[in-house]
Amino acid sequence: MSSTVPVVERVLSANDAVAAEVRARLDAHGIFCANLMASPGAGKTSLIERTVEALKDGAAIGMINGDTSAAAFDAERSQRAGAAAVHINTGGKCHLEAAMVRDALALLPLERLRLLLIENVGNLVCPMSWKLGAHANVLIGSTPEGDDKPYKYPRMYAGVDVVVLNKIDLLPYVEFDCDRFLRGVEALNPGLRHFRVSCRTGEGLEEWTAWLKEQIRARR
Amino acid sequence: MSSTVPVVERVLSANDAVAAEVRARLDAHGIFCANLMASPGAGKTSLIERTVEALKDGAAIGMINGDTSAAAFDAERSQRAGAAAVHINTGGKCHLEAAMVRDALALLPLERLRLLLIENVGNLVCPMSWKLGAHANVLIGSTPEGDDKPYKYPRMYAGVDVVVLNKIDLLPYVEFDCDRFLRGVEALNPGLRHFRVSCRTGEGLEEWTAWLKEQIRARR
Repeated sequence: MSSTVPVVERVLSANDAVAAEVRARLDAHGIFCANLMASPGAGKTSLIERTVEALKDGAAIGMINGDTSAAAFDAERSQRAGAAAVHINTGGKCHLEAAMVRDALALLPLERLRLLLIENVGNLVCPMSWKLGAHANVLIGSTPEGDDKPYKYPRMYAGVDVVVLNKIDLLPYVEFDCDRFLRGVEALNPGLRHFRVSCRTGEGLEEWTAWLKEQIRARR
Repeated sequence: MSSTVPVVERVLSANDAVAAEVRARLDAHGIFCANLMASPGAGKTSLIERTVEALKDGAAIGMINGDTSAAAFDAERSQRAGAAAVHINTGGKCHLEAAMVRDALALLPLERLRLLLIENVGNLVCPMSWKLGAHANVLIGSTPEGDDKPYKYPRMYAGVDVVVLNKIDLLPYVEFDCDRFLRGVEALNPGLRHFRVSCRTGEGLEEWTAWLKEQIRARR
């Protein structure tokens, strides 16, 4: 198996170079970009829908969605909410790569966008290895997944800039100890900014969108 | 990127050879083995706990748990439930490989086991590419993940032998259309056996454990 390691390292460093290109293009256009990562079903698309609904009157928003199939439900949902959306079929790959994002940028009206939300493939492991050029890596957790996730997926929790804990409306019905979850996060990533939200009821979303507005403002 | 493909193919075919070795050892001992795959937090460990509690008086059960970290919570939970459990730290890898299972077999009392449950890394993409030598690949879905998962992770749903839909106790609180979910499964994997369960309330678990008992009996 060791023979694959140098190949993987070459591929990852080539990816980093493309990620730097992507970042430069975003910066040239003054666009703030967040890379949203999560387990399947944690609520990436729902968070994007709510975010677009809340911010679209103040800022044009783009969305790039990565899925392992041609099913473009998520991009369609974001488009209906008001974003300019591009769907990427990763062809079975378990993560987005910077070259996919670079190609998607060509399909977006960069000159008028202020915010770009990238919805990565649902996966708590592999996406963390692939830089995309985003300004913030955002992890969306959800209460039904359990409070042990920081302990079991430490690389993901250690590597992100923001955690959004979704589905807090389900807290009465699931076993989830917020303190245990946050202790796990704090041990891996001290001082990490986190938001507790319910995309279903809207609870907590204002803090999240206020944070995004700050980031957007800081880019201009 | 194409340079990685031959390497990946060589690695996968080496893995298949080890999986065949694992299968032969299991068959020599008359052990039925299921490879449980799911998103993080769908309830793999909970299903194993309930299964061990239900079947341990009739059959000695082994459990191999793969996680991306050293945190052995899941193996410990299975052990408390009554299984002989081994924890594998994949060192950040997003899936189990057959060689990891082969090494874990050496730590289990194979001569007395009748059932071996493998808990793969929480991931709906990569584990499907790595055969482990199990007799059945079992996918655990859960209602909070949403009814669109078969459409978005088609390789996983097309490749498994059984689907267990967990957390049906949360149906009143989440948006999940069972018919849409099952239509998606049926289109990818016609006639696929499925069970609807709640590991929390116990609903539906008897059908699942009855199926496992049949598989165990058929091995002797």
